[in-house]
Amino acid sequence: MKKISKIALIAGGAGFIGSNLTKELLSEEFIVVVADNFSRGKKSNLENCQINLDKVKIFDSDLSLEYETIELFKKCQQFGQITEVWHLAANSDIYAGVQDSHIDLKDTFLTTHSLLKAMQECNVDTLHFASSSAIYGDLGDIELHEAIGPLLPISNYGAMKLASEALISAASETFLKKTNIFRFPNVVGTPATHGVILDFVSKLSTDPKKLEVLGDGNQKKSYLHVSDLIKAMLVARNKVRVNTLDVVNIGPVDDGVTVKWIAEQVVARTTGGKSSITYGSSDRGWVGDVPKFRYSTKKIQSYGWTPHLGSKDAVLKAIDEILLEINQDISPN
Amino acid sequence: MKKISKIALIAGGAGFIGSNLTKELLSEEFIVVVADNFSRGKKSNLENCQINLDKVKIFDSDLSLEYETIELFKKCQQFGQITEVWHLAANSDIYAGVQDSHIDLKDTFLTTHSLLKAMQECNVDTLHFASSSAIYGDLGDIELHEAIGPLLPISNYGAMKLASEALISAASETFLKKTNIFRFPNVVGTPATHGVILDFVSKLSTDPKKLEVLGDGNQKKSYLHVSDLIKAMLVARNKVRVNTLDVVNIGPVDDGVTVKWIAEQVVARTTGGKSSITYGSSDRGWVGDVPKFRYSTKKIQSYGWTPHLGSKDAVLKAIDEILLEINQDISPN
Repeated sequence: MKKISKIALIAGGAGFIGSNLTKELLSEEFIVVVADNFSRGKKSNLENCQINLDKVKIFDSDLSLEYETIELFKKCQQFGQITEVWHLAANSDIYAGVQDSHIDLKDTFLTTHSLLKAMQECNVDTLHFASSSAIYGDLGDIELHEAIGPLLPISNYGAMKLASEALISAASETFLKKTNIFRFPNVVGTPATHGVILDFVSKLSTDPKKLEVLGDGNQKKSYLHVSDLIKAMLVARNKVRVNTLDVVNIGPVDDGVTVKWIAEQVVARTTGGKSSITYGSSDRGWVGDVPKFRYSTKKIQSYGWTPHLGSKDAVLKAIDEILLEINQDISPN
Repeated sequence: MKKISKIALIAGGAGFIGSNLTKELLSEEFIVVVADNFSRGKKSNLENCQINLDKVKIFDSDLSLEYETIELFKKCQQFGQITEVWHLAANSDIYAGVQDSHIDLKDTFLTTHSLLKAMQECNVDTLHFASSSAIYGDLGDIELHEAIGPLLPISNYGAMKLASEALISAASETFLKKTNIFRFPNVVGTPATHGVILDFVSKLSTDPKKLEVLGDGNQKKSYLHVSDLIKAMLVARNKVRVNTLDVVNIGPVDDGVTVKWIAEQVVARTTGGKSSITYGSSDRGWVGDVPKFRYSTKKIQSYGWTPHLGSKDAVLKAIDEILLEINQDISPN
């Protein structure tokens, strides 16, 4: 009897984290199906991650559309069996979602609804979902462990992630057998699609003389390198028991670094410290930005995972990687 | 200068709770605009609540459609100023939502999204939202106060209510000025559209000899009479400060009654106790049903509200009202 191929379907697989995950899952015995609407994801992200594209099936799919998602699942069933779905499709641009909630509605929430519909229809019962620390909103100094409340997100991004969690929670009561909800921290690395480092590098490439920082620079956040994030997800995946929904914070074990420190590092590495840095007056970079938070990662650590890089090293490594990737030379001299 | 009329817009205003709220708000100096898709709401619900329909403007609107919602708001602006929106539109049939999540998506969640869009576009900044204790999922014996976590709903109904809360929370960070999120308990009274009492009465009208109860009958829940619920909402509305999102549980102050007890009361009042009652074996009536929970109402009580009727009296009153309403005579003799 012919062995049926196991398929891991990665929604948003051409994005920043998705492309890194694709590379990792190819080292297991999966056919990896990347489904992406390519609004932020790029095929070149997969090349940049040194993925052998012959081994990956890439679909340009709008997963916010239910019929298109179900059609994709049925196509996959012709060459194998989808044994797990990784849902990383989302609008990763928080600010854009604040301006227009349709983007988060469609790309972050309706993708969840469609994927659940397709999974139920095609009897796929294992889901790993990329949620976010943004679902916690601004709880001040309280330590954010997985069971904390209330959950009052302050951005549409966080709202649609929480909304997705809620749907997945209900689905795990009906048909999902193994479910992970990962709550991501700020993640850095390449291929960079957004985020504070890329933002600073871009600004400096336009005007190397000065760097304008949104907010007063004192926002302190923890950052995880994407390589550590991928490992954490795989560890948590192997811990989840049948008929369980496991919610896990993933993040660094330190208190993080300030935006000011990041700005200084980017300036040091791009213009040799020759750019002047100016700051805003608000303690938030934008509406929906959470100035600081204490993120509990005890649970994921209890699974035997620790990050190789703390926030500082993760940011420094990411700066180097991003500069290498865009082959940046913005020295004013 | 001509005084501009104040409009209270009630989404889902022709439903069970909406029609009772309409009556109450008419006693204030509002023009009440009822917007309903009449899928579960009925115009006769407003008549049954002895509402003078000349004083109410009723619109048959699908509020899940953003353009239709914005159009409605603009129509209203021609004859007054919407000063507050009460969002009670939802699929109230939990079981139907378990079977087909599209119903909850459309009627419970997308209505929230559309209403927020319309409010933002038309500068309406006061929202009172009917959420549900279903957002808490099944937390076992833990007391469910407003700040508890984790929030892992087990029905699509609860999921879409939590999803709505999340969106509203993000909106209160941007443009909403005064926001109430009411988490409703099981509410009883007339005009009854669904719920355990109506269900039992309907079953007995089909076959007065026997009443089949889903689940083992030991599910214990607290019930609030709709008259007490309306009063609680108005009390909380008057407590909410500017630039605040206030989440409030509303519910009885007792531990509730069992489904078995309700079945016995309905049988006693309809067939004089002559129907045999049979029970299922599960501790849940259906998937997504939470068998029992402890619901904290300390906050709403701290606002000076207490229910006039406990769970028992609320159920007994509702049975009489429902029987009166449908002019039921199913005595087997």
